[in-house]
Formats: sequence, structure tokens, C-alpha cells
Amino acid sequence: MMGGRIVALSGGVGGAKLVLGLAHAMPPERLTVIVNTGDDFEHLGLAISPDLDTLLYTLSGQANPETGWGRRDEGWRFMEAMAELGGETWFRLGDHDLATHVERTRRLAAGATLTEVTAVFAARLGVKVGVLPMSDQKLRTEVQTPAGPLPFQLYFVRERAVPPVTGFRFVGRETARANPMALQALEQAGLTAILIGPSNPFISIDPILAVPGLRQAIRNAGVPVVAVSPIVAGRALKGPTAKMMTELGIETSALGVARHYRGLVDGFVLDERDAALALSIEAEGMAVHVSGTVMATLDDRVRLGRAVLEFAARLAVDRAPSRSGG
Amino acid sequence: MMGGRIVALSGGVGGAKLVLGLAHAMPPERLTVIVNTGDDFEHLGLAISPDLDTLLYTLSGQANPETGWGRRDEGWRFMEAMAELGGETWFRLGDHDLATHVERTRRLAAGATLTEVTAVFAARLGVKVGVLPMSDQKLRTEVQTPAGPLPFQLYFVRERAVPPVTGFRFVGRETARANPMALQALEQAGLTAILIGPSNPFISIDPILAVPGLRQAIRNAGVPVVAVSPIVAGRALKGPTAKMMTELGIETSALGVARHYRGLVDGFVLDERDAALALSIEAEGMAVHVSGTVMATLDDRVRLGRAVLEFAARLAVDRAPSRSGG
Repeated sequence: MMGGRIVALSGGVGGAKLVLGLAHAMPPERLTVIVNTGDDFEHLGLAISPDLDTLLYTLSGQANPETGWGRRDEGWRFMEAMAELGGETWFRLGDHDLATHVERTRRLAAGATLTEVTAVFAARLGVKVGVLPMSDQKLRTEVQTPAGPLPFQLYFVRERAVPPVTGFRFVGRETARANPMALQALEQAGLTAILIGPSNPFISIDPILAVPGLRQAIRNAGVPVVAVSPIVAGRALKGPTAKMMTELGIETSALGVARHYRGLVDGFVLDERDAALALSIEAEGMAVHVSGTVMATLDDRVRLGRAVLEFAARLAVDRAPSRSGG
Repeated sequence: MMGGRIVALSGGVGGAKLVLGLAHAMPPERLTVIVNTGDDFEHLGLAISPDLDTLLYTLSGQANPETGWGRRDEGWRFMEAMAELGGETWFRLGDHDLATHVERTRRLAAGATLTEVTAVFAARLGVKVGVLPMSDQKLRTEVQTPAGPLPFQLYFVRERAVPPVTGFRFVGRETARANPMALQALEQAGLTAILIGPSNPFISIDPILAVPGLRQAIRNAGVPVVAVSPIVAGRALKGPTAKMMTELGIETSALGVARHYRGLVDGFVLDERDAALALSIEAEGMAVHVSGTVMATLDDRVRLGRAVLEFAARLAVDRAPSRSGG
């Protein structure tokens, strides 16, 4: 049951925590993560892929536990010198972290794909989980606000997610193609579940689903799709998810998230504090599993990873007869 | 007499020391340095201008006194992380220093000239001396060796200047144009002397002289041209100058340097230890000034700067009558 192959969709911090837990709960080389690159941007001439880096740093034990981004034991001499030279400093790039961006930019300029660069970095950092950008082309999240659209990082970092959000646009969705390795992972023999991490549905998961072909490939995989709620007790575990839901007029609860995933998700993992929502979510046509979803420690992550895998496995058993009978 | 305008030609360390001395011996805003960019290269996707940076760092008090390159109080996290990612690490880029390269690359990509970028950095760092790249186009020194040609930094840093040198080629000299501001400085009213720093004649000064129009503009300026010997007692003060002279079959002495500058230089500044060479150098048609040329301290630099300025002023007085009489 735990011997199958798993695909997870992930944004940054929250998703990375679940993926780390999964990597301890199953053979990591059987796990493939399709990562949001809608937050990617070019800054100071460097190609920056925040969610890919969060995954690589988290899985290699190098993530900064305090900030939720960047690397641990980081230095800031580069930023100091940039300030001195009058360069842009609103996006913080640590001295260690910078090597990732410089080397990625160099490799991309030399003709490598983002998938290839990420694979090289994963190998160097000893990451055994397959970490895949959703696309090798640009598909960039643009945040709609009353004052006009903002590229994601300007909204999120420079403006500290303060402007109210009226919607999102995924710029490049007409021309971006799904990462062929991501499609392959979704079609591979032995796939037993697709998991959606406790990431922001709008800015972390929706960009992945906006890549042409990926949503369909997920539906076509014929395995349970299980999402973990990023909202617990009406609040986001991290970042502006709850704020966005309020601004978008969506119920700010795990139920709101579940409804957002309607038609895609078979099973929904709910925190114990939200157990009262289980019936309403089941009424949306999803199975519900109630668990501790707050991942403060590595143990929490492994426990949640294991719980999600077991829940998905139960769903697979449940749906098997109906399928052969259908 | 000391109120005139001065132009200096400079490579990295040795030239920068003299320029720093000059900047203390005269009003710095009347001093313009035309800097070698033949050592410039693109590395890790970054535009690197070692001699320009050495000038800016030296004049702003940020140079690393131990290494002769890079910045003081430097950190190496970026390099550590590059090694971890399998990137190239033979060219050491400090965490502070890196900001200069990233910001220069960004500004160049946005359409600024190297002259403009250098002026912005100089202003930010409080440098009052005019620091000018010799050209805004590429003119790159290529070192000829028995094993074939090597781009300068590969020869100098990666190969540690070990391969024997058979000659030099300045790639791009057909298309590079002189920095218009450098030409302007050489033609400006009030110019009283042109100084050639104690830099390597072959790889620091010759590239400047190879820029179309610069050598002629120096000759046309009608002011004394004074060179300071980079060779003292048969040895280079810094770097591979003496080694190169031996390999090129040039006498490894201040006399060899003076002969190299024949036809360009009116006055030659010789170290006390080489006073015995004065007559031979005068026989080459140059006036000679004997001075302490080793610049260990700031005082040494200021003293040498003052001596060079006074020597040039004397030469101007000496030549004035012969000119009006000729």
C-alpha cells in the first residue's frame, strides 16, 4: 500500500513541510513533487524560483526555520553592499542563497531547462525526492488589485501582501506547456495517489492547475486526489491565504478551500479543530479525514505525511470496486 | 602648478596605489583615471571589471589590503554555496564584492554604459576622482602561450600566471572606441600632465594604448607624460611583470620598461635602488626622476604622488621654452 508512487503538488513553505514528512514516511525516490513556479521572477538579472528553492532547502535540511524562506546560517553582506551601491533591496537575497540564483541563471542562459537545473541542484544537495517545476516556460501569477495588477513578488514581498486582492491572472498560460516529466509522473504505472499540500490554493496550487494539461492529467490519473487544508480554525497557517479568501468573498475556512477544489479532489484532510466542518465538506462530494495538520516539528510532518498516505490508500480501496463495477 | 588637471592611466593594484596618493596630493576632482578594462570578463553571467573595482575600492578605503583585490572584511558564503552546487569557484567572488558585479550586470543589461555604471558606483562610494573605463566596448587581453591563447583571467587567475607568455593580443581593438570622456579628459583645458602608474606595461597599460585613438590623444595633449616604473631592482612590485619580461626576452629592469614606453613617455620615475639605470634611461630620450617608489603605506603613496606631480611640472617648465623656440 505504501509501496506505490506518489505525486504531490506544492507551493513553498506549507507544501514543503508536508513533502518533507512524506519523504520520511515513504521511500523518497518514489515521491515526485510538482512545484509552483508562478512566483518565479527575474530580479537583479537573476532567475529566482522561490518555491523550488524552498523545496530543495527544506528537503536538504538547509531551510531557514525562522523566516520560512532562504537558507539557515545565512549572511547578508551582499544585501549590505547592494544598499551601499543604491541597488534594490526589497527582495532579500542571502549570501548563501545567492549562489543558487547565480548558478541557475548561468545554467538557464547556457540553454538548460529549469527542470534540468533543478535536477542538478537536487543531486548536489542530496535530495532524493523528484522536484519538478510545473513548467519550463513562464507562467507568472499576477495579482489583481483595485490599484491595478501587480506581478506576484511585487505584491507579496515589496507590498507585503497589503493591497486587497480582487483576483489573479496567470500570465503565459496560453504558451506555457506542462513539464513533460510532470505529465509522465501523473501517468506512470504504480501511481497510487496525488496529494495537494497545505499551500495557498490561489497563488500556489491554482498556477499549477492553470498549466495546460496538468488539471486534466490529474483527473485522468484515476487515483485518489487528496488535499490538506491550509486553513485551520479560520486562519492560514502561513501567509495571506485567509486574508485573500476574505477579500475574494470566499468563506474563510477549510470548507471554503474544499469548495475551491470541488471537482478535482476526492479526499480532504481537515485539522481536528475543524472537525465540525466534516459533514459540510462531505456534502461537497469529498471524503474527509480529520488529523493534526499543524506541522511544528519534523515528527508532526512525518505523522501527517503518514496519515495522508493512509487516507489516500483507503480511498483507493473504496473506489476500486465501484470502478470495476462502473 | 599643482592646480592643473591630471590624467593617469592605471591597471589594478599598483596604479590604484599611486592614484590614491595623487588624490591626497591634489584636489581629487581634478584627477581623471583612465582604467584598463582588458582584464574584464563575463563570469557566472556577471560582468566583472577587476581594475575598475580595484580603483573604486582603493579610493573609497574598501580595498582588501591583504589580497590586493576584492573588499576588506569580506565574507565567502556565496563561494561556499557555489562549491556545494558544483559551480565554478576558481575566480573568488566575496559576498560584499558580488553586489558590485550583480548591480553592474543589471545596469548594463538595462542599457547603461560601463562609464555610466562606474560613475554611479563612484558617487555612491564617495569617490571624487574621475574613474573612467578606457572604452565602453570590449577590448579583451588574450595571452599567447605555447599551448595556445588564453583569455586573460583564465591565464592570470585560473592558471595562476604559470604558462610562459609569448605575446598578447587585444581582442576587439578593431571595433572598440575610446571612451569619449577619456578623450575629453586628454583634450581638456588646464591639463598639465599625463601619468602612467606603476602597472604592468603589457597587460595593464598596453590595452589602454591599444584602444583606437588613445595613444594619439596622449601624444597630442602636449603635456609631459610621466611613467612610474613597476619594476624595482629587477623585480615586479606585484604580479607577473618580471616573469613576463623574462619570457618575452625583454631586459627585466626599469630600463626594459622605459624602452617599452619609448616614443610615448617624456619622464620616467625610477626607484632609488635603480638609480644606476638613470643614465641609460636618459639615453633613451627621457628625463629621469629618482624617488622611493615602493608604496607600503598611505604616506608612501602621497609622497610618491607629490614627487610625480612635481617632476611632471618641472618637465612642463623645461619644455615650454623649447616649444616656443621650435
